[in-house]
Amino acid sequence: MEKSSLWERQIKGKQSICFDYSPYIISSGCVVGKKEKEGPLGDLFDESSEDDLFGEKTWELAEGTMQQIACMQALNKAGETAEQVRFLYGGDLLRQGIATSMGLEKLQIPLFGLFGACSTSGEALALAAMSVAAGYGERMLAVTSSHFATAEKEFRFPLSYANQRPLCSSWTVTGSGAFLVGNRKSHVKITGVTIGKIVDYGITDSQNMGACMAPAACDTIFCNLEDFSYQEKEYDRIITGDLGEVGQSILFDLLSKKGKSIEKNHLDCGMLIFDKQTQNTNAGGSGCGCAAVTLSSYILPKLETGEWKKVLFVPTGALMSTVSHNEGESVPGIAHGIILEHED
Amino acid sequence: MEKSSLWERQIKGKQSICFDYSPYIISSGCVVGKKEKEGPLGDLFDESSEDDLFGEKTWELAEGTMQQIACMQALNKAGETAEQVRFLYGGDLLRQGIATSMGLEKLQIPLFGLFGACSTSGEALALAAMSVAAGYGERMLAVTSSHFATAEKEFRFPLSYANQRPLCSSWTVTGSGAFLVGNRKSHVKITGVTIGKIVDYGITDSQNMGACMAPAACDTIFCNLEDFSYQEKEYDRIITGDLGEVGQSILFDLLSKKGKSIEKNHLDCGMLIFDKQTQNTNAGGSGCGCAAVTLSSYILPKLETGEWKKVLFVPTGALMSTVSHNEGESVPGIAHGIILEHED
Repeated sequence: MEKSSLWERQIKGKQSICFDYSPYIISSGCVVGKKEKEGPLGDLFDESSEDDLFGEKTWELAEGTMQQIACMQALNKAGETAEQVRFLYGGDLLRQGIATSMGLEKLQIPLFGLFGACSTSGEALALAAMSVAAGYGERMLAVTSSHFATAEKEFRFPLSYANQRPLCSSWTVTGSGAFLVGNRKSHVKITGVTIGKIVDYGITDSQNMGACMAPAACDTIFCNLEDFSYQEKEYDRIITGDLGEVGQSILFDLLSKKGKSIEKNHLDCGMLIFDKQTQNTNAGGSGCGCAAVTLSSYILPKLETGEWKKVLFVPTGALMSTVSHNEGESVPGIAHGIILEHED
Repeated sequence: MEKSSLWERQIKGKQSICFDYSPYIISSGCVVGKKEKEGPLGDLFDESSEDDLFGEKTWELAEGTMQQIACMQALNKAGETAEQVRFLYGGDLLRQGIATSMGLEKLQIPLFGLFGACSTSGEALALAAMSVAAGYGERMLAVTSSHFATAEKEFRFPLSYANQRPLCSSWTVTGSGAFLVGNRKSHVKITGVTIGKIVDYGITDSQNMGACMAPAACDTIFCNLEDFSYQEKEYDRIITGDLGEVGQSILFDLLSKKGKSIEKNHLDCGMLIFDKQTQNTNAGGSGCGCAAVTLSSYILPKLETGEWKKVLFVPTGALMSTVSHNEGESVPGIAHGIILEHED
């Protein structure tokens, strides 16, 4: 292969890559907390914990342990070991990514620590797929997590204040999803990715994350359709990470202004994972773990059987911290698109 | 090229990649604060600020602005624009990477947000080089930053407490370094990378970061030498990020136990950037910006002229947060190795 052809062929449009050799999602693992287990997808998860502590003494250690469990689930299902994995791409929502740092040391896999807020599962899958497709290794792991209790402590109020949640707020999912990406054939392959830009519409309400992230989701979905010259309907489903109800309606509005309509084939992981009527989760689930566990438990099986042939998976993130919020800064969003296709 | 050969050839040993087509560091840019400007490398930096605020109203915005300035410096020196850059790999030390989120939106480049503590400049350079070498684009930017005032607020005590610093403590560098990595020939190329694992020796003293990071630096340097079958002396210099004096002596001890000796060709960016006698910086400089600005201002020029032919650049990170520290957790380290070589 000529150097120059290598340097041109995979570049697709403005922000996308179309892989020469599509890597596969060989297997995945997911673990959730009690509330997620009680939700509509409850029966589909690999593992759950009754007390959300997973045998640990702090919520942060519990979240790290979830990442470890999810990775081991993915490895076990594929009959592979941590030693066979070349690089690990992982992240969480906590300051300085401590759940990842504390949870993944035991695996002893070279690590790329990531942060893209709730879009991190997309970032991790994109980089893992890019690494495999480039020949940097035959197995990569992509893992993300979030935990209701660690996120409340990090971003909101002590739980014991019992403060009220606006209807547009979301409920951080306790869960972790891990994906073994590699060159071993499975029924789901990653054929392309669209990497998102930071999109800032100036929204400062950190409780309304759907509104903060919808513009980024719109940008990435629109760019994906343009870069690959796809029609909306070519995807069986376009599935965002955790826009929730408010974010979904904004996304539809924004896309329709750009002449695109995804109402008929759009799903949102945050709206799938909880039953808002009985679970009191307002706009829906959110967090780094939300899109990851929904992909592992609900989306991948439908791609494996071929019920869906082609899905655009778009985890969405709100780039904020308590410091930026307290200083009055707006909450920019980011979203990455992963094209998942069934292979017989 | 056969799929299988592509999938084997670049893999080197346990944790390393040897690029088929080595990407170049086309240009770099760096910006620092007042204290760094007054240090031994002062004359080498592209830009500095008298008040460390860079015209902004908060330290966090100032840090974001530094990232933007460093990126623009790198682009301007190469005569290129942000539109020509395909992906940006960036990070900082702040919770949820807000300096990166707030500073880089204006560039409108698809972003991979990273966190590897002070090792992030290595992580960013590795991923940028991997992306270019794989043909995912012709130009990538790698950028990191740290700021004394944002880091003190994030990790330590309010400055006005005036608390004492132990001799093993380090001084967070106010600065940002950006690197334009691509397929356009320059005099410095990235020929390989060694990706680090999390290494935890159980140290809980967050003021002694050199001790926390030295085991990770040892692990990565040893692995690099083994993976590439190099002798220590094949490198003109092996340059760690911010071990400081305490970390350096631990690194020498640990490596000598493994039969390696780098005393003669080791440098540490943290020890280069400040004059500890006159600048009161104790063990040395630290932070995501430390290794980045030292690479841009001091190391790259020596590689460009050919004074040094081959350098192993090893940014080191201490994976901790105030939450993990307050919960009594140890501070694991991580380090990534970047092989930089002169080309005529």
